Amino acid sequence: TASKTLRRPPSADNETDYRALGTFQDLFTSSLYSPGSPLFLPNGTHVINKLIGFLRTQYLQYGFREVLTPTIYKRSLWEISGHWVNYKDDMYEVRGRGATGEAEGEVGEDESYGLKPMNCPGHCLLFKSQKHSFRELPVRYADFSPLHRNEVSGSLSGLTRVRRFHQDDGHIFCRPQQIKGEIASALGFVEMVMNTFGLQSYRLVLSTRPEKDFIGSLELWNSAEAQLREALDNTGRPWTLNKGDGAFYGPKIDIQIQDKAGKYHQLSTIQLDMNLPQRFGLEYQVSEREPEYNPETPGKATPVLIHRAIFGSLERFLAILIEQYAGRWPFWMSPRQAIILTVNRTEEVVRYAEMTAAKIAGFRALQQTDGATVPKPLSSVDSTFVVDLDTSSQTLSKKYQRAKQMKYNLIFVVGHKDVQGQQVTVDVTGQLPSMSDQQVLDLEELLETRFRDQA
Amino acid sequence: TASKTLRRPPSADNETDYRALGTFQDLFTSSLYSPGSPLFLPNGTHVINKLIGFLRTQYLQYGFREVLTPTIYKRSLWEISGHWVNYKDDMYEVRGRGATGEAEGEVGEDESYGLKPMNCPGHCLLFKSQKHSFRELPVRYADFSPLHRNEVSGSLSGLTRVRRFHQDDGHIFCRPQQIKGEIASALGFVEMVMNTFGLQSYRLVLSTRPEKDFIGSLELWNSAEAQLREALDNTGRPWTLNKGDGAFYGPKIDIQIQDKAGKYHQLSTIQLDMNLPQRFGLEYQVSEREPEYNPETPGKATPVLIHRAIFGSLERFLAILIEQYAGRWPFWMSPRQAIILTVNRTEEVVRYAEMTAAKIAGFRALQQTDGATVPKPLSSVDSTFVVDLDTSSQTLSKKYQRAKQMKYNLIFVVGHKDVQGQQVTVDVTGQLPSMSDQQVLDLEELLETRFRDQA
Ligand SMILES: [Zn+2]
Ligand SMILES: [Zn+2]
Repeated sequence: TASKTLRRPPSADNETDYRALGTFQDLFTSSLYSPGSPLFLPNGTHVINKLIGFLRTQYLQYGFREVLTPTIYKRSLWEISGHWVNYKDDMYEVRGRGATGEAEGEVGEDESYGLKPMNCPGHCLLFKSQKHSFRELPVRYADFSPLHRNEVSGSLSGLTRVRRFHQDDGHIFCRPQQIKGEIASALGFVEMVMNTFGLQSYRLVLSTRPEKDFIGSLELWNSAEAQLREALDNTGRPWTLNKGDGAFYGPKIDIQIQDKAGKYHQLSTIQLDMNLPQRFGLEYQVSEREPEYNPETPGKATPVLIHRAIFGSLERFLAILIEQYAGRWPFWMSPRQAIILTVNRTEEVVRYAEMTAAKIAGFRALQQTDGATVPKPLSSVDSTFVVDLDTSSQTLSKKYQRAKQMKYNLIFVVGHKDVQGQQVTVDVTGQLPSMSDQQVLDLEELLETRFRDQA
Repeated sequence: TASKTLRRPPSADNETDYRALGTFQDLFTSSLYSPGSPLFLPNGTHVINKLIGFLRTQYLQYGFREVLTPTIYKRSLWEISGHWVNYKDDMYEVRGRGATGEAEGEVGEDESYGLKPMNCPGHCLLFKSQKHSFRELPVRYADFSPLHRNEVSGSLSGLTRVRRFHQDDGHIFCRPQQIKGEIASALGFVEMVMNTFGLQSYRLVLSTRPEKDFIGSLELWNSAEAQLREALDNTGRPWTLNKGDGAFYGPKIDIQIQDKAGKYHQLSTIQLDMNLPQRFGLEYQVSEREPEYNPETPGKATPVLIHRAIFGSLERFLAILIEQYAGRWPFWMSPRQAIILTVNRTEEVVRYAEMTAAKIAGFRALQQTDGATVPKPLSSVDSTFVVDLDTSSQTLSKKYQRAKQMKYNLIFVVGHKDVQGQQVTVDVTGQLPSMSDQQVLDLEELLETRFRDQA
C-alpha cells in the first residue's frame, strides 16, 4: 500500500530531473555501502521488470534466446579473453576468504576470479559447449545479468554513472555472409523499441576500420563494412561516418539520442568482433559447397561475433524514460496504475474498498481463505494490476491531491453510495482525459467483468 | 531452431537422473572456469524464467513487492550484519584492481567488499531508507538476485551443491503480533506452490528456542513460538518438533520433500529473526495506543524480520522438477512446446512450414518486413509459444522418433497436402493423449484463430 505521508513533489526547476523524480516516486535509492550500485525500491524494480519483460517478448520473434551465466569466472578465462590485461583497472577481483578452496589444489592464480564486466566471454563458453553446423547459424544469446565495472568514484552518480548495471546484452554468432541480415534485423529492432518509447529522434553513427593495428583480413573488413553500409542505407535514415574510429577488432554502429538540453546519449550499440571467436577457438561445421569453406581448415569455419544492446544500460535507459515521461508512466509499465480513495473511514467503506482493490487488481479471493482451502495460483495470462489503497483519515481532497501528485494513472473513489450500489466511482478529471474513448470503454468493460466474475 | 543431431537419450538406469536429463535436454552445462556455477543454456533459462514468472504473478496477491539490490557491499556492512565474522569461510571477498578507488580516500578496509551470500542485509538497508508507520506493516520484499557461497570444491555437483545460485528470497518486516498471520500466509503459499508442481507430500518441522545463548526476550520467544504452533496446527497437516534446534536469533519452520529414493530435501524455510533488525537499528513509528508501545523508546518499535523462501534454491528446485517430470515438462513451462516436421524438403513445403511455425508461435509477420515498415512490438498479453522446426533431410520417421525423444509437447507435420489445404496436421499419437478433451478443443480453437487472424 502507498505511503500516507504527503511529500513535496519536485519543484518546477527539477521536475524533469530523473534523480528528483526517482526519489519522489520511490523508484530507487543509494547507500554508502554500495557506491555506484543503486538499490531499486519496489516501484523502480517494477519498471525495470516491465522493460525486461517487454524485450523478452520481442526476443521470441527476433530469434534471441535468453541464457543465464555466471557472475565470476577464474582469472584464466579473463586472460583468454584479454580483459585481465586490457581491462585491468575497470575490473574487480574476487577471492575466497576461507581455506576451503586451497585444500582442493585450487591454490595460486586460479583461486583468483574476475567479477564480470561484460557477458561475451561467458557466451563464448556457451557457444563452445555445443556443436554447431552452418545450417543452425546464427545463434543468438541474450542475457540480463548484472555487470560490474570499477569506475572512478568521483564520477559516480545516480543511474547514469554507476559501477553496477544491467544490459539488455546480446551476442550473435553468425556466418560472414549473414552480417548484413543481422545488422538489418538489429536496426529494425532498435527502430521498433525507440518508437515504442517515443524516442524516434536518434542518430546513427558508423565507425570503420582503424588505419593500422587492426586484426582480421582486409577482405573480411571490406565485406563487413559494405554490409553495414548497405543495412544503414536501407533504414532510410541519415547516418554519419566516423572513419577509422572502429575498434581494432571490428566496425560498429552507435545509436545516440538527444536529450532536452541537446546532449547526445549513447543507447544501442552494434559491434562486430573478429577477435573473441579466434581467442576462444570458436568454430562451426561447414561443408565444401559453402562460400566460406577454407581448404586450410577443412570442415571448420570461424563465426563472426556481433555484440549488440538495444536499451544499452537498463539503468541509463530508465533515467532517460523518467525524464521523457516526467514521471507520467504509460499505463502498461506504471508502478502506480490505480489507487482507491475512501470518502470516510467507516468499517463498511474500508472493507468494501479493500474488496474492490482486490477485484480490480485481479486477485482471486485470497483474503477469504481460512487455511483449509488453498487458493488457486494466478496464471501468467491472468491480467493483474497494481492497485493501491488510501484509507487514511485525511480529507478526500487531500488524498486526491496526493494521488494526482504521485501520478496515478487511474483514481477511484469509494463511499457509502458505492457500497450500496456495489460499484466504484471512476475519477474522470484525473489522468483519464489522456485516454482514448476506446481505452475508457475497455476500462469500463474490464471493471464490469471484474465485478461480475469475482463477486 | 532445434539441433538436428540425433543423440542418445539417457538410459533407463538414469532417465530420472537430473544431470543426464539436463544434458540431454540442453538445459545447462558447466565450465572449468566457473566451478560450482552452472551455465544455463536457453532451454534451462526458459524453465527458470517460467518459475520466476510464476512466483512473480503470485507475489501480487501475497503482498510481496520485488526489489533489485546490489551484488557487492563494503566490508563494513558485513561487519554490521555479523557475516564478516560468523560467515567468513563461505564468503568471497572483492577488491578493485586498479588504483581508481585509492585516489578518492577509499583506501583501507572499505575498499574491500563482500560478494553477497544472502539478501537480508541489503533488504535491511532498503527498509531503513524509508520511514514506516505501524499502519503500513508488514513490508514484504522479494528478490531473485544471484547469491554466492564459497562451498568446498569437493562437494560441488550439478545443480544441488553449487557456489552460485538464485533464491526466491523474501523478507517480511512485521509487528510482533503479526507473526501468526504472516506464517499462516507463508504456509498457505507453500501449499499452493507444492500443489502446482505435484509435490504435495512434504513434511513440516518446527525448530524452537535453544536452551542458552539465544537473543531477544523470553516473552517475545514464547509469543513467537505460540504463533508458529498455532499457524502449523491450522494447516491441518501433521508437523514435527525439533526442540531447542532453532537458531540463536529465532525459531524456524522447514519444509522438506521426499525424493523417490526416500531422501528428504530441504525446500522452503520460514525463519524468524530478532537479531538483524537490532543490528541495523530498524524501527517503525508506533502510537501510544498500540500494544507494542514501549515507554522506554517512545514512538518507536523494532520490527520482527521473517526470512522466507518457497522454492528455496531455484537450481535445486529445478533439479527436483527435472526428476519429478522425468523431462516431460507441463506445457506452460516446457522449453519444447511444439515442433513442426516437414515431410520433404521442397521449397513450398519448407516455406509453408516456416510460415506455420511463425503463426503458431504467435509472431507478427516479421519476415515480410523490408526495412521500410517497422513491425509492431508484441505485447506481454499476446500469447506466444516456443515452436521449433525440423526441415532436415532425414526421413519423417527419424524426425518423429527424435521429436518424441526430446519430449516435445506437440508435434506437427507439414507436407504437400497441408500446403494445398492451408492447414497443419496435428500429431495425435504423440504427447496429446495426456491432454484432456477440453485441452485438445482449446488447441484446435487456438490453431484456428491463428490461421484465421494472421493469414
Ligand atoms: Zn559483448
Ligand atoms: Zn534472509
